[in-house]
Amino acid sequence: VIALPDDEAAHLSRVMRLAAGADVRVFDGAGAEWIAQVAEISRRHVTVRLIEPAVPAPEARIAVVLAIAVLKGDKMDEVVRDAVMLGVGAIQPLVTDRTEISSASIERSNRVARWQRIAVSSAKQCGRAVVPAVAAALTFEAWISAPRERTLLMFVEPGAALPATPLNQVHAVSSVSLLIGPEGGWADHEIRGAQAAGATLTSLGGRTLRADAMPIIALTALRTLWEDF
Amino acid sequence: VIALPDDEAAHLSRVMRLAAGADVRVFDGAGAEWIAQVAEISRRHVTVRLIEPAVPAPEARIAVVLAIAVLKGDKMDEVVRDAVMLGVGAIQPLVTDRTEISSASIERSNRVARWQRIAVSSAKQCGRAVVPAVAAALTFEAWISAPRERTLLMFVEPGAALPATPLNQVHAVSSVSLLIGPEGGWADHEIRGAQAAGATLTSLGGRTLRADAMPIIALTALRTLWEDF
Repeated sequence: VIALPDDEAAHLSRVMRLAAGADVRVFDGAGAEWIAQVAEISRRHVTVRLIEPAVPAPEARIAVVLAIAVLKGDKMDEVVRDAVMLGVGAIQPLVTDRTEISSASIERSNRVARWQRIAVSSAKQCGRAVVPAVAAALTFEAWISAPRERTLLMFVEPGAALPATPLNQVHAVSSVSLLIGPEGGWADHEIRGAQAAGATLTSLGGRTLRADAMPIIALTALRTLWEDF
Repeated sequence: VIALPDDEAAHLSRVMRLAAGADVRVFDGAGAEWIAQVAEISRRHVTVRLIEPAVPAPEARIAVVLAIAVLKGDKMDEVVRDAVMLGVGAIQPLVTDRTEISSASIERSNRVARWQRIAVSSAKQCGRAVVPAVAAALTFEAWISAPRERTLLMFVEPGAALPATPLNQVHAVSSVSLLIGPEGGWADHEIRGAQAAGATLTSLGGRTLRADAMPIIALTALRTLWEDF
């Protein structure tokens, strides 16, 4: 018998209005899921009895970190929701040269905590038992200079400062970080910095695609090409 | 020298605040684009002088009609915007068994005219010189029983009434209609009706994807597979 976190307890009792004995599925956010039954319930405290392991939605074979420049307004909410649905392993918000919101403002508005809650609710909605981590926002410079093992793929616009390899000519790898820029695109020195850090520059044909649509398009194209849907 | 339509004239004079002599690009919505110059301008009447033909964003090789069940709230606005950006040739809104908005309500609220305006503005934003037609909404039964030449591909959920072919096993064609269902999915009789009309049933792996994200995911996956980005 385990206790649910406070917000899930409140959701179960006050929004779903379930009673003791109700059948539920619970997951630990790290890949395990169970068929369970509500044991005790009050407005803010709920315990469930685990009955047997359940089979969650399959995780992607390729581990993807989405390293994305923070977008304007509430657009990151949808980006996080869609990226979790499309199987990312983690999300790294970045503050780049042309990001229109400052690190201080991201911190003051508790954005990262908000994105983490959206990641939980998207995992619930699409049946994933893994909740991808949403990391604290970092500047592009801080993130790109950290050592890493995984392959780096930076999406650049058609006509960027340096030539790009079409995505369908990029070889499949087992783990990759996708770098996606803000509405105004990457600054030239960021493109050069990523390349110096070993990133492959890539693009999706000759059309300009909206920044807030790029994560879902890039993740879909990559999973399609690498047969990981 | 040609006159702009009223709403484009108003946008140019009152929103963009351009003056006579300003350089603009104009397109006819059917594939032709020109470099032009503002000739005469008043609040509601603008003429431009065509200087020389311009090269618009390349059109997709594969002509795609997106036949989509009308979604709840304003979600179709984003679907139309994204589908135009991803190169669809036309959009056919459908009223299906589980569509939560009636044909009468779609008509009363002038939704189709709104979607047509969104198609124009999305074409402007992504540099397409073709504005895809948004047809009047039809019931699924009316649309599926009309004769057609193009290939039909119906996206069904994992575990649908009839088995589906994975999208990466569907052969490329030169013109295709993509059938995408509403939030509640297709009714069994609609899946059977589509199959009887010659549709190939397809799906994208074992995950359940949100209805309003399906058009952008399906279009991206198909253009990636058929090398038409």
